[in-house]
Amino acid sequence: MHKSRLGQIIIDCQTDDVEREAAFWASALGARPERVADRYVWLHGKPNEPQVIIQRVEHESRVHIDIETDDFDAEVRRLEGLGAGVVEHRKRWVVMAAPSGQRFCVVKKRRPDFEEHANQWG
Amino acid sequence: MHKSRLGQIIIDCQTDDVEREAAFWASALGARPERVADRYVWLHGKPNEPQVIIQRVEHESRVHIDIETDDFDAEVRRLEGLGAGVVEHRKRWVVMAAPSGQRFCVVKKRRPDFEEHANQWG
Repeated sequence: MHKSRLGQIIIDCQTDDVEREAAFWASALGARPERVADRYVWLHGKPNEPQVIIQRVEHESRVHIDIETDDFDAEVRRLEGLGAGVVEHRKRWVVMAAPSGQRFCVVKKRRPDFEEHANQWG
Repeated sequence: MHKSRLGQIIIDCQTDDVEREAAFWASALGARPERVADRYVWLHGKPNEPQVIIQRVEHESRVHIDIETDDFDAEVRRLEGLGAGVVEHRKRWVVMAAPSGQRFCVVKKRRPDFEEHANQWG
């Protein structure tokens, strides 16, 4: 038995200034930006809003979603069983590709209400 | 004075079978799919989750976000003032591009708790 759910919306920006891009998205969405790491700015919106993260990347700019889980291996296997493929194993996340082509990541549970609201599988 | 907020996550699928793609995403995210139009399947998740929509498109598969508003013109002007550009005016939405390159859409307010939770501007 494990759990997962839609975790975060990641706005991948090919940029030399992640704070400048985050300033746009923060103002657009009415959220407060917080630089949490070299590549990352978190946007703090209202509690009922999904978590949005601005990420500096080398590849083209795009948007992807994260699925958060309490069991990495079980969740990757479940998604493979649905038709997704593993693109890359990283230390803290797994990059996967949906049958429809979009990449997404499986990450460790992050949002505080995970236990209460995530889907339970198996 | 007008309002807006992050509205929906749109999973754009270059596909000949939008229901097949929606079946994957519904199972991945633990949501119930509902075909609402030729090109669209809505995913009904838990009430606290963002609305996810699967859309059949001709362009490459990707993910984009919608900003929902009660005043189209005012919201487009506000976003232009932040540095976004208009890509295309459609009858029911406006396609815009962020300074960081991602396309997003401005749409009419849709989610039932809009009045209560949207950001107020001006």
